[in-house]
Amino acid sequence: MEVCVVLVRARNAGNIGAAARAMQDFGFADLRVVNEYSIPLEAARAAVDADDVLRNAKVCASVAEAVADCTLVIGTTAVGERVMEHELLTLKEAAVRMEGKYRVAILFGSEKTGLSNEELSYCHWLMTIPMQAREGRHLSMNLGQAVAVCLYELVRGNVLAEAGPHSEESTATAAEMENLTAVLEEVLEASEYTRRHPSNSDPVVMRRLVMRLGFHAGDARVWLGILRQVLWKLKRD
Amino acid sequence: MEVCVVLVRARNAGNIGAAARAMQDFGFADLRVVNEYSIPLEAARAAVDADDVLRNAKVCASVAEAVADCTLVIGTTAVGERVMEHELLTLKEAAVRMEGKYRVAILFGSEKTGLSNEELSYCHWLMTIPMQAREGRHLSMNLGQAVAVCLYELVRGNVLAEAGPHSEESTATAAEMENLTAVLEEVLEASEYTRRHPSNSDPVVMRRLVMRLGFHAGDARVWLGILRQVLWKLKRD
Repeated sequence: MEVCVVLVRARNAGNIGAAARAMQDFGFADLRVVNEYSIPLEAARAAVDADDVLRNAKVCASVAEAVADCTLVIGTTAVGERVMEHELLTLKEAAVRMEGKYRVAILFGSEKTGLSNEELSYCHWLMTIPMQAREGRHLSMNLGQAVAVCLYELVRGNVLAEAGPHSEESTATAAEMENLTAVLEEVLEASEYTRRHPSNSDPVVMRRLVMRLGFHAGDARVWLGILRQVLWKLKRD
Repeated sequence: MEVCVVLVRARNAGNIGAAARAMQDFGFADLRVVNEYSIPLEAARAAVDADDVLRNAKVCASVAEAVADCTLVIGTTAVGERVMEHELLTLKEAAVRMEGKYRVAILFGSEKTGLSNEELSYCHWLMTIPMQAREGRHLSMNLGQAVAVCLYELVRGNVLAEAGPHSEESTATAAEMENLTAVLEEVLEASEYTRRHPSNSDPVVMRRLVMRLGFHAGDARVWLGILRQVLWKLKRD
């Protein structure tokens, strides 16, 4: 299994550096940073002693780009007051379910706000580190510590040792799923579904709908073909 | 089981704050800071949002003082080139062995040098977080992250739920062991053992010798009585 850590809108260079250091400590190499501006990553590169991981970190303009080649996308959350639409697993349960997967992305949100609903819509399911609630406090863990604890659980359980296959029969990548979502949106537009059911046609709602299907790679391609055919027909009439 | 975190010679206020925050996140309250000067703790108190743990942190002048009431003292190490005289367990193994204990101290050394031999001599055994070796690098983990990972393992395994008894039959506290070590030193001095075998009479060597006995509380008291009697006789003649 290959694991990449995706930091979404991390603002603090120290936290990016700490996350990179935890990755290096536990033997992970693939860091992807989603940010509108590259300043925190550059500051982290200048300041911190985790050269390899930081030097090779990939800067992405969007979550979609960051997770495109992944077959499983997991969001992390501190379980606030937000209503959860996703299935939520503890870190321990999550490690078990990751076994045998091909390429997994673990998303960490910004220190202040976590992952937005739009960002969460790219995730197959969520995981959380069990914490002690404190009265009147919003539960949240330091970003560097959260990354360290999550990666420790993977190393601990030896989840990484079992390499998953990536054949035609395996799970679709996030890029394939995103492609499907985009074509579905076009179909809904062309069929005037979006006009009749605007509240169901939000891109985030659509993406969640497609993600929940949990397509195998081959199936995703077949469905894409079907949708394209429908689209062609709709536009032609 | 009660667990206290002992930070020995932590120099960086940010690291003390991060350790305190991890404790609060995982529901631990007992922080003890061993430092010659109190500046880093005071700076951490001023800067960081983990009020309860930091406010109640106990400042100790020595490791002996910090662990006096504990029945199990565990040192953490990154396994460098140092020759290990202690038994070394992985964090996972350590959590299992901690089950049913009464009051456990987990010692973390300074960010730069770890725990010294003198500090290690107070430990029953050592534990380590499994890390990936990097070429030409000294293995070491960020202090706040190391504390977070260790406490996560305890919460994860539910080790804390099982409260150990503290009866007369249970393990001796570190203070009782230290007492025994001190009287043994006096005996060795009075019997001229120290003069004949100076290399065996180093206080660190003595302490290790006593710690390895793994006394039960009652036995420690009996042995203390025996040594005091011997000492009385030696000094009288």
